[in-house]
Amino acid sequence: MTPVEKLCAAVRSAAPSVAGLDTGTKNRVLCALADRLLEEETVRAILEANSIDMERGRESHMPEGRLDRLLLNRERLSQIAEGVRQVALLPDPIGEILEESVRPNGLHIRKVRVPLGVIGIIYESRPNVTADAFALTFKTGNAVVLKGGSDAIASNLAIVSAIKDVLSGNGISPDAVGIIASTDRKDAAEFMSMREYIDVLIPRGSAGLIRAVVEGSRIPVIETGSGNCHIYVDESADLDKAVPIIINAKTQRIGVCNAAESLVVHEAVKERFLPLLLSSMNEHHVELRADEESIGLLPGAVPATEKDFGTEYLDYILSVKTVSSLDEAIRHINRYHTGHSDAIITEDEAAAERFLNEIDSACVYVNASTRFTDGFEFGFGAEIGISTQKLHARGPMGLRELTSYKYKITGNGQVRA
Amino acid sequence: MTPVEKLCAAVRSAAPSVAGLDTGTKNRVLCALADRLLEEETVRAILEANSIDMERGRESHMPEGRLDRLLLNRERLSQIAEGVRQVALLPDPIGEILEESVRPNGLHIRKVRVPLGVIGIIYESRPNVTADAFALTFKTGNAVVLKGGSDAIASNLAIVSAIKDVLSGNGISPDAVGIIASTDRKDAAEFMSMREYIDVLIPRGSAGLIRAVVEGSRIPVIETGSGNCHIYVDESADLDKAVPIIINAKTQRIGVCNAAESLVVHEAVKERFLPLLLSSMNEHHVELRADEESIGLLPGAVPATEKDFGTEYLDYILSVKTVSSLDEAIRHINRYHTGHSDAIITEDEAAAERFLNEIDSACVYVNASTRFTDGFEFGFGAEIGISTQKLHARGPMGLRELTSYKYKITGNGQVRA
Repeated sequence: MTPVEKLCAAVRSAAPSVAGLDTGTKNRVLCALADRLLEEETVRAILEANSIDMERGRESHMPEGRLDRLLLNRERLSQIAEGVRQVALLPDPIGEILEESVRPNGLHIRKVRVPLGVIGIIYESRPNVTADAFALTFKTGNAVVLKGGSDAIASNLAIVSAIKDVLSGNGISPDAVGIIASTDRKDAAEFMSMREYIDVLIPRGSAGLIRAVVEGSRIPVIETGSGNCHIYVDESADLDKAVPIIINAKTQRIGVCNAAESLVVHEAVKERFLPLLLSSMNEHHVELRADEESIGLLPGAVPATEKDFGTEYLDYILSVKTVSSLDEAIRHINRYHTGHSDAIITEDEAAAERFLNEIDSACVYVNASTRFTDGFEFGFGAEIGISTQKLHARGPMGLRELTSYKYKITGNGQVRA
Repeated sequence: MTPVEKLCAAVRSAAPSVAGLDTGTKNRVLCALADRLLEEETVRAILEANSIDMERGRESHMPEGRLDRLLLNRERLSQIAEGVRQVALLPDPIGEILEESVRPNGLHIRKVRVPLGVIGIIYESRPNVTADAFALTFKTGNAVVLKGGSDAIASNLAIVSAIKDVLSGNGISPDAVGIIASTDRKDAAEFMSMREYIDVLIPRGSAGLIRAVVEGSRIPVIETGSGNCHIYVDESADLDKAVPIIINAKTQRIGVCNAAESLVVHEAVKERFLPLLLSSMNEHHVELRADEESIGLLPGAVPATEKDFGTEYLDYILSVKTVSSLDEAIRHINRYHTGHSDAIITEDEAAAERFLNEIDSACVYVNASTRFTDGFEFGFGAEIGISTQKLHARGPMGLRELTSYKYKITGNGQVRA
């Protein structure tokens, strides 16, 4: 066995014991971990490890943004600990009876929520994901194999070491969590082929990372993240609602997947609306990339190419497309979006209903900002990512999306006729 | 575009219109199809096509069993029509509100069941799957690309031609169904790479076919079928219940995935139980492959090798393994089964509970035959296959397993703070 296979096999053998833990035990372990992450000795060990990563990052001229994502300090560590404690407070979905029936032959069938088994998580710079992903997968009775970014290896190893310590201290196999510390691409490829040991792989990070996992994995993947979100201003829009929603969706946080990237506007309102848009976007330093039909109303805008409509800028840039009908808006959005989140601004109920039904996205909004696509905003109390696929989970994924189910059938000697 | 890509793209473009059909329209189309499959002209066209397939099969010395699966006649065609009509009678899961909440900020969130989009089905000899798979996917608002076995190409094309005719006659794009008629392996591989157009691929057929799809597909796959089902006779089993359950699970239909392939027996009951087993298995001409601890009590049995415990015989063969505890039984089964269906025969509630919880299978039984793992027996009214994976769907898959969901969020100007 190679080191990667050995690690995955060890986590797989620990999975049944994690799956069998009761809610009280799981919560006790999570609280113990939260406590541990605040203990001086652990804090020092993690911060020391993080300073190694930071130094390596600076030496390799890592951009400021990435250095900041990599950085841990006492405040961030206590936020991480608080996050773990919050997961302990959430209701445990495992064991929930989803359906129950007694068949005419007397068979009693229960559909019961169970863990998925072993979850693999592939992520990038942020070391907080290490603790967060462990807490969410452990709470749902899953074992987990983590593969963080090579930038953060020392920090991740220090956090995993604290987790393993807490598991052992509570009589649980430390193999319930494994971390692939290699930076070798061959090992990443091998990890993604471990179908025998890992039930699902969840990539968290940039569009590039997600694409690499989707294309390279032999394990089923839940595709997350990439969001080319559109806002459509309908001919019957209340323009006073439209402007603050667009400002919020575009500028409240630019680097996130639920930020708006493209504005679609009905030609009937463009002359009234676009000047309003322009002044608010100028105020927020947003560059506009406009189509032929709108650019005349948007002094300072640059001409949009087709590529713009399909681009997730993650920046202070917004593309503008004019349409002559709701139909055209729906067609345009379904063509260029990533199926994440899209919104219509309208006072027309029929238009809203058609948009809700016909836009093929995880989350479709009427008169609200796309920024609400988030496990916490949806009331899930947690979030492991936002799925842009339709299989298994779609939209924000909380604890329940980390579970499967099984059928438990009890009889008294029934045989099939 | 290659022919395969062109076909998949055409089905993808038809998908939104199918997704938007109301229940009444979908049911009318299905009833019209059932009628059409009984019309003399259609019957003749399909049977003529089938006779071409049959002749080709005989010429290539296809075994009797496969020839029989390939054969269509008037009786089988009316069963197929009746199957399509039954699907029309089932409740439509699309549009079901799965959850609904109003957030503190006033956002109204509804989680609504929607079609998956485009489903790909890869299957083998039986041409009845063509009509059946279309009916189930159409009822759930999905478009479908079919790829049947090369043996049955003429029959499948004739059935699809009838379907397309009925669709057109009802004002629906005939591209809602596509069939890949090529027998070229390159085209099969290309089909399995059409991730852009197809949301999920469901293989139906032999273990070999399923493995080939799981290994070759770039589209998410729902793994179905392979069933190495175990029955465990506990030390506290009622042996009078055990014997008929094992006879049923092993012999009622040998070639199916929910048939029992292996018996696990507690050593405390082996001396009382194995002679009972032997006489009933002899009566049903079942060959026993027994481990060292049991073979002495089973005159005529052949020694089991480790390979036997992991084999899905689909034949009149049963392996026998002796264990000294429930723990050992659970470990043994979880090691060798395929996660499909396993049963315990016991009068001990604690043992039953542990078995239900700790056996990692889609369906776990207490005192009943594994043969009940079936969409119809579970009351789903339909079945597209039995999933042995944990993602998206597990166990028998009915209409609901062919759906996804989306979030519809309505507000009145909410922005994120």
